[in-house]
Amino acid sequence: MEVDYSNIKVIGFDADDTLWVNETYFREAEEEVGRLLSHYETPNKIDQELFRMEIVNLPTYGYGVKGFILSMIELAVELSNGTVSNAIISKILIIGKDMINKPIELLDGVEEVLKTLSKHYKLIVATKGDLLDQERKLEKSGLLKYFHHIEVLSEKHETNYTQLLKRLDIEPESFLMVGNSLKSDILPLVKIGSQAIHVPFHTTWEHEKVTKKEANGSEYKTVECLTEILDFFNS
Amino acid sequence: MEVDYSNIKVIGFDADDTLWVNETYFREAEEEVGRLLSHYETPNKIDQELFRMEIVNLPTYGYGVKGFILSMIELAVELSNGTVSNAIISKILIIGKDMINKPIELLDGVEEVLKTLSKHYKLIVATKGDLLDQERKLEKSGLLKYFHHIEVLSEKHETNYTQLLKRLDIEPESFLMVGNSLKSDILPLVKIGSQAIHVPFHTTWEHEKVTKKEANGSEYKTVECLTEILDFFNS
Repeated sequence: MEVDYSNIKVIGFDADDTLWVNETYFREAEEEVGRLLSHYETPNKIDQELFRMEIVNLPTYGYGVKGFILSMIELAVELSNGTVSNAIISKILIIGKDMINKPIELLDGVEEVLKTLSKHYKLIVATKGDLLDQERKLEKSGLLKYFHHIEVLSEKHETNYTQLLKRLDIEPESFLMVGNSLKSDILPLVKIGSQAIHVPFHTTWEHEKVTKKEANGSEYKTVECLTEILDFFNS
Repeated sequence: MEVDYSNIKVIGFDADDTLWVNETYFREAEEEVGRLLSHYETPNKIDQELFRMEIVNLPTYGYGVKGFILSMIELAVELSNGTVSNAIISKILIIGKDMINKPIELLDGVEEVLKTLSKHYKLIVATKGDLLDQERKLEKSGLLKYFHHIEVLSEKHETNYTQLLKRLDIEPESFLMVGNSLKSDILPLVKIGSQAIHVPFHTTWEHEKVTKKEANGSEYKTVECLTEILDFFNS
């Protein structure tokens, strides 16, 4: 299927796991907490319970490291039946601070893609997560110069995108979104009449996965690596 | 001193402790944690140490309940020399969730002021804090209909306001900011050539207080109650 991008004027990029590594750090942190709590439960059970705890707390805490760490502390107390040591609580707090202060590791080809596309298109970032964390990551990434606008959203549903495009005075059909999450970066855009390119990241959080049925019939492109996008544009 | 508001086209409102009660809940939470830790230290010492911990963690956690709770847990471990019970950790987590889920208590006259001013001016919210928390509070407040734009900022320095006004295409001299914090809502605005009205809240977080010297020479109005603002406008 050949997709026509000749209408496109503005290209939106997701940030975490599209421009830089993120999910990997959450998975590593989960493994570390798993080891800290291995005295109380099997790695598999800890994994399941952590996921359950995160989903239960998501409406209260939202996305981001701070809510993740609060969930891990709650889980440590719960799984240990209220006997987890202060040393382990402290270690979980340190894991969180380390995650927040991690250097930015750009994904392959990001700089090249943004540099090329920014000559012909307005580029924006549309990301979920903690406002301070995301601003700090963009600052550290050195990529700010390529973007016309940065938007941190509390959710990435159709309505969030519709409001964003309206506010920035962008017609849905002139907008293309690029991201690693089918659920957050691709399907809502296809539904509001925008275009989308899916660049899967090797690790996807369980919560961001969609079933075949949910994606069925939606039209979007999938590429293996961000640089492939450049083939679709005359630049 | 008579201030001339005839240039004003857009009025910005701070949210926490300007539109609704907020700081009071933080002070109550601190008192509650103080009681939980009263076994280990005097209330005064706990208070001082909590403030110190929050300031140390501010660059990492930013503003908002989640960072506050993480700091309280860290303090509990530290003050107890690593002996605080899991029951107390759990109670601190619950204090945090209760804070996030508190109903909104509007301050006196807020609805009247917004209703009246929104007929003649574009109103915006410019608030610091956690994105999800602030969006949720605005939603719960029932005040969203009065506002043309909501901006959650990670900081409220001069540059943050300058960028915001530029992005929204607002001339500094046509902007008036209303808020309870001299440091965050008033002084930066006066410095960039906008106007500001200070509506002090009875409780101000130590970190938001400014010395006489810092405020010296800056021109802004102070009112005791939000409804007094209406006297300055022909409405």
